[in-house]
Amino acid sequence: MKYIAIIGYGVVGGGITAVIEANKEQIKRTVHDDVEVKYILDLRDFPDSPYADRVVHDIAPILSDSSVELVCETMGGSHPAYEFSVACMEAGKSVVTSNKEVVANFGDKLLECAKKNGVDYLFEASVGGGIPVIRSFNTALAGDNITAIRGIVNGTTNYILTKMKNEGRDFADVLREAQGLGYAERDPAADIDAIDAKRKIIILTALATGVLLNDADVYAGTLRTVTQDDIKAAAKLDAELKLLACANIKDGAIEAFACPMIVPHTNPISHISGVYNGISATSEVTGDIMYYGRGAGRLPTAGAVVADVCASLSGAAKREYVPTFERKEGLARPFDEIEFTYYIRANCPKVELCDKLEAVCDKVEVISENADVIEAVAGKMSYKTLADIFPDATAIRILD
Amino acid sequence: MKYIAIIGYGVVGGGITAVIEANKEQIKRTVHDDVEVKYILDLRDFPDSPYADRVVHDIAPILSDSSVELVCETMGGSHPAYEFSVACMEAGKSVVTSNKEVVANFGDKLLECAKKNGVDYLFEASVGGGIPVIRSFNTALAGDNITAIRGIVNGTTNYILTKMKNEGRDFADVLREAQGLGYAERDPAADIDAIDAKRKIIILTALATGVLLNDADVYAGTLRTVTQDDIKAAAKLDAELKLLACANIKDGAIEAFACPMIVPHTNPISHISGVYNGISATSEVTGDIMYYGRGAGRLPTAGAVVADVCASLSGAAKREYVPTFERKEGLARPFDEIEFTYYIRANCPKVELCDKLEAVCDKVEVISENADVIEAVAGKMSYKTLADIFPDATAIRILD
Repeated sequence: MKYIAIIGYGVVGGGITAVIEANKEQIKRTVHDDVEVKYILDLRDFPDSPYADRVVHDIAPILSDSSVELVCETMGGSHPAYEFSVACMEAGKSVVTSNKEVVANFGDKLLECAKKNGVDYLFEASVGGGIPVIRSFNTALAGDNITAIRGIVNGTTNYILTKMKNEGRDFADVLREAQGLGYAERDPAADIDAIDAKRKIIILTALATGVLLNDADVYAGTLRTVTQDDIKAAAKLDAELKLLACANIKDGAIEAFACPMIVPHTNPISHISGVYNGISATSEVTGDIMYYGRGAGRLPTAGAVVADVCASLSGAAKREYVPTFERKEGLARPFDEIEFTYYIRANCPKVELCDKLEAVCDKVEVISENADVIEAVAGKMSYKTLADIFPDATAIRILD
Repeated sequence: MKYIAIIGYGVVGGGITAVIEANKEQIKRTVHDDVEVKYILDLRDFPDSPYADRVVHDIAPILSDSSVELVCETMGGSHPAYEFSVACMEAGKSVVTSNKEVVANFGDKLLECAKKNGVDYLFEASVGGGIPVIRSFNTALAGDNITAIRGIVNGTTNYILTKMKNEGRDFADVLREAQGLGYAERDPAADIDAIDAKRKIIILTALATGVLLNDADVYAGTLRTVTQDDIKAAAKLDAELKLLACANIKDGAIEAFACPMIVPHTNPISHISGVYNGISATSEVTGDIMYYGRGAGRLPTAGAVVADVCASLSGAAKREYVPTFERKEGLARPFDEIEFTYYIRANCPKVELCDKLEAVCDKVEVISENADVIEAVAGKMSYKTLADIFPDATAIRILD
């Protein structure tokens, strides 16, 4: 028998016990032993749960029980998730997490701690829910050089954008509905201000480069200002408006950001709608590859945690490439300096718009004009340049 | 130093030496040792290759050299690939292959032979080229029950269908061009008669169920009869015509087939165009998941072989779930009995068409009619039923 503990018995934590019950046989096939949850750490009690007798309110009994080989950290947040994870690893236990915040903020220290203590620190469920993107980065693509990452990594905002498009409704209206249905949090900032997407692109970029970027070096653009006019503009360009998390890795620099972008229909990522996630990677040998699936939800995310549990308890994780993350200053290109092609909507005469844009970029194409508003596509230029000439225009980046 | 051999130095075999050269450092990071190609078995000589001195024309020196830990089989075809693979494994060498034919035909025996001899038999590159779909089935989805597989697994035919749609040209015309460009073989039967796609769905189904279906039990529908009218019919239905490889696993039976199908645009697999491949799996815990990427080509496929080489030489493969395939009779549902919704084009009066269809199925919808031709969507019914009432109609299955 292999014993594990779960710290944080919320949506994902509860899913873990469900998946372990449901897939007992398949798990045994991989681990070559039964896996049992011995402790559940939570502030609450769960008197009606069949696991009621395993609930503890203190990490101490887990740390001191040497029969517990592995701990699933599904608490969320940086603290005390970080401190608890370190304590578990220092007590010789591997840690598996679904917590993107702690990986994005402390992944370098947590991986180092795992190495020092000869245990695993695995975080498949932190990005893309049930999509096995992290294992793929560490196995199939481990012998390859990843040069670009594009991801729709936040299901809540993709659901909101899909609804806005299909039903012609406003952002605030759809957000309120999503909150009512439990698809969006009561405090939606992490999702709609792209903080969650930013954390995920920090993690993916670290897997591709070994460098864990600082939170402050990665731009997060909010969706709060997105309007029906923006959605319609994307449609005019045979494209979709998406919250995209991106990284470009070239010439020793990293461009990483998460913000609303116009994604042409020729890119398969544009067709990912509703709560689904999609993550694509471009690499030298493999070319373009994309993963698509349910990026969140109790069972898919818990399933990814359990896949990591199996990889750790079977010993497979130690034989795979084990990434290390390090902090390196000066690699991240400031967002204002990254050049994009832009969709621009402004209240000004056509001649003025064209003259100003043609002075700073190669391609300028007016796509509509009427008395009040002119729309154009122009690029490439930095936001710095654009904001200089049109400080008040609506500007949306277009994915190449 | 870890020594390997390559048997069959064609497109993929040549790619392996290129990838091993290019990604030396990354490979060492995983294997913890250098990897060197010691022998290349081929009927030809390669006097201009830097590997000219490693070329042998007989398997014997490879078998008798105990320093060779692993053999990459990139010969293609069933024989002698099967016999050589068995001989290598009996000599204590792991085998990694890109050869879907030998895996589809002899996967049960080859995996058993590997187990008996304590070596690995890995075949990531046999399906989906550079897409790590097999490793995902064996790791992320190993603790899950896969209930459906849908795949565009043949890049040549997807390229042809995409060209036919975009340029309005005939099948034979586009095929000829693809042959001229080297995208299609001089004898294109394996691709265009869906034999290649059939082999791949046999392999994926075996990974999902443990059952290796007999070649004769899996239907392969040719593309030779596809016309512009069929492509246009798909467009009318807001869908694409695709060569789809499918498996449904339910109630103890397996429905597996590869044939042209109409795939609605609401399914992300419909948007996979050109030489790209896409494979989706539906499972109980993870839900829907899809992998997308270059399904063929020298470097992506060689990259997948090298990923397997790393997994074997590092010892990771033995810690992962190792599948076994067995033959079981009577599980495959005969293709004629599987129920589909159909697009039907016939030369007959509307009343006759509707009457006959309404007698056998719940849903009948006429989508166009003129003096000569009537088009309808109707279902669900088996092909047996449909052929009984309309033996001469054009009928194309629609993916749900």
